[in-house]
Amino acid sequence: MKSISILGSTGSIGTQTLDIVRENPEQFRVIGLAAGSNLTLLAQQIQEFRPEIVAIRNEDNLPSLKELLTNLDYQPILVGGSDGICEVARYGSAQSVVTGIVGCAGLLPTIAAIKAGKDIALANKETLIAGGPVVLPLVEEYGVKLLPADSEHSAIFQCLQGVPDGGLRKIILTASGGSFRDLPVEKLASVTVQDALKHPNWSMGQKITIDSATLMNKGLEVIEAHYLFGMDYDDIDIVIHPQSIIHSMVELQDTSVLAQLGWADMRLPLLYALSYPDRLYTNWESLDLVKVGSLTFREPDHQKYPCMQLAYNAGRAGGCLPAVLNAANEQAVALFLEEKIAFLDIPRLIETVCDRFSNQNKTQPSLDDIIEADKWARKEVLQCLTVLA
Amino acid sequence: MKSISILGSTGSIGTQTLDIVRENPEQFRVIGLAAGSNLTLLAQQIQEFRPEIVAIRNEDNLPSLKELLTNLDYQPILVGGSDGICEVARYGSAQSVVTGIVGCAGLLPTIAAIKAGKDIALANKETLIAGGPVVLPLVEEYGVKLLPADSEHSAIFQCLQGVPDGGLRKIILTASGGSFRDLPVEKLASVTVQDALKHPNWSMGQKITIDSATLMNKGLEVIEAHYLFGMDYDDIDIVIHPQSIIHSMVELQDTSVLAQLGWADMRLPLLYALSYPDRLYTNWESLDLVKVGSLTFREPDHQKYPCMQLAYNAGRAGGCLPAVLNAANEQAVALFLEEKIAFLDIPRLIETVCDRFSNQNKTQPSLDDIIEADKWARKEVLQCLTVLA
Repeated sequence: MKSISILGSTGSIGTQTLDIVRENPEQFRVIGLAAGSNLTLLAQQIQEFRPEIVAIRNEDNLPSLKELLTNLDYQPILVGGSDGICEVARYGSAQSVVTGIVGCAGLLPTIAAIKAGKDIALANKETLIAGGPVVLPLVEEYGVKLLPADSEHSAIFQCLQGVPDGGLRKIILTASGGSFRDLPVEKLASVTVQDALKHPNWSMGQKITIDSATLMNKGLEVIEAHYLFGMDYDDIDIVIHPQSIIHSMVELQDTSVLAQLGWADMRLPLLYALSYPDRLYTNWESLDLVKVGSLTFREPDHQKYPCMQLAYNAGRAGGCLPAVLNAANEQAVALFLEEKIAFLDIPRLIETVCDRFSNQNKTQPSLDDIIEADKWARKEVLQCLTVLA
Repeated sequence: MKSISILGSTGSIGTQTLDIVRENPEQFRVIGLAAGSNLTLLAQQIQEFRPEIVAIRNEDNLPSLKELLTNLDYQPILVGGSDGICEVARYGSAQSVVTGIVGCAGLLPTIAAIKAGKDIALANKETLIAGGPVVLPLVEEYGVKLLPADSEHSAIFQCLQGVPDGGLRKIILTASGGSFRDLPVEKLASVTVQDALKHPNWSMGQKITIDSATLMNKGLEVIEAHYLFGMDYDDIDIVIHPQSIIHSMVELQDTSVLAQLGWADMRLPLLYALSYPDRLYTNWESLDLVKVGSLTFREPDHQKYPCMQLAYNAGRAGGCLPAVLNAANEQAVALFLEEKIAFLDIPRLIETVCDRFSNQNKTQPSLDDIIEADKWARKEVLQCLTVLA
């Protein structure tokens, strides 16, 4: 029986984690939940999973939550705000914390969990992309495990389980190619939000679907892989694999390639992050390669998708630049979703903002440096927009 | 530095093993060599690798070998015959023995090596297919490792390195489909030896190329996988994968699939069997999936290729029947190569011989039972042939 807490319990990662807990009542127990504003769902989760502690992002909502829980036959501790979320992260006997909170808001509670000695089922990408230089030393210091809960890094992590130190030569991240993989580059200028939101394989949130269409998602994953597996950027490749069946690969020193395959289902990497190092039985549908028929591969087109190169550049520069890249991307994607900029303005804005950033404290930025850089980048995108307009 | 001995040093497995030793002089040292009748090549190998002991199959050839070694500045021990090969297998400080001898002739020296506490780089398939019931208890008793050196079982073994006990749900062996994979079933009756010897992906010996065309190679690998990984026959599947890039796969309890990929190059599994658990650096060509372009998969056609089902049946029956199947197949393939029978007579003869075998001592056959069964089956194929004629 493993005890877990879930940050972002009403989001996509959170609800899928709770699906896994529901299917495996002998294996997992929920200690803490932290959520945003979906109080109704949170109240249902409390009733079903009976956590010891619950946090909501906005403490002003605590009375409304309490009201929803009046008929409950037990009393969880209720806390609110950023401090409350951190309290859930470090609370009690939880062995693993699932970090399903989006954005830099996930950084502080993740650090709180690490400092409390909890393993991290890592679903918040800012933890490494922005926070890498601060988080990795803490992971080392507190001897906890960072267990990737997204499909690509989980695939790499799974492939590496039997590989001795020094055996890894190259990481090969697969990319679906996103909504526009078959669209000629000259048509990208005029694509609409609706076009961009049609992802061929994965059903995901709007932000990540746009990241998939710009291939920035893959660029960000390159940076994450760099921190997670200690690989040089030169040794992390991207290959377009439209079927999204091979979730990523590793090449070893002897040229042997190991790959992890499966249907496009987020639950599998989540389950492995929770059950690691065990392999729990599930009755999920087995992969059927005969049904798939064919797996294809092609080079990524860096001309068509400049975001990948922007990410490699920011990663190589290091310091706070990955945080700037990530924040600028979030802001630019938000503007695109609001139909305030065109699709191709996304990489343009990111590049301009990255170019304008003075990457001080490059060798060892502090958490404050990182959070400042994130804030600066978001403002700077809006600033650039005014200039462009 | 690992010390190894090589049984069958002048054959395909042996020469490729020595290529690896030549490329990695800091890693491997050759203690013993055993070979058949290619004395000239053996003498060159002795000069280059300076083994402590050398065996040749036919002791009558010892004087000729000695003559070839007159200018040598050191004297290896020279031995001959089956006893001599066993002496090499158990000799001195070798940690691993590469069993590249073909057929049941490889059984006794493999057992000698196991009893001398050596790990086995397993390239002789009779060791498990025929000898499984005898060899596995010895492997257990002497605490040695059986390291598969063929591409399919090595792929499975590589995928399983990080998988905890009980984590494996299914083995998926990939098959190229052989020379006739795109030929309509009705044309199989009239194919020639020349047709059958054109393997699409692998450059191999004649016998194994025919096994690949009948898909008996895959049937035999199913039996080997059963013994090597302790899997039920129901949990070992075959999928046709014409490109031979994925060398095999495993499905785990959580439905995650791990695969090992690479070019069709026997050196890779050999190297891993020798260097296990390490991953030695090589300058061999990296796999390039973009160059490959597409990996395809389809169901194996059991109507067209009855040998697979014959192997499953023999494996499930157990005892000496796998030895009978294997020997009958060898004999039938030899007759096909001599143009004495047609391609479709191969499965017919094997089935008839398997049906005629009285599988006594089924639960725990002795080594003698197995060797007897092997001999019986070879004779019985010729017997059936006379009856057919």
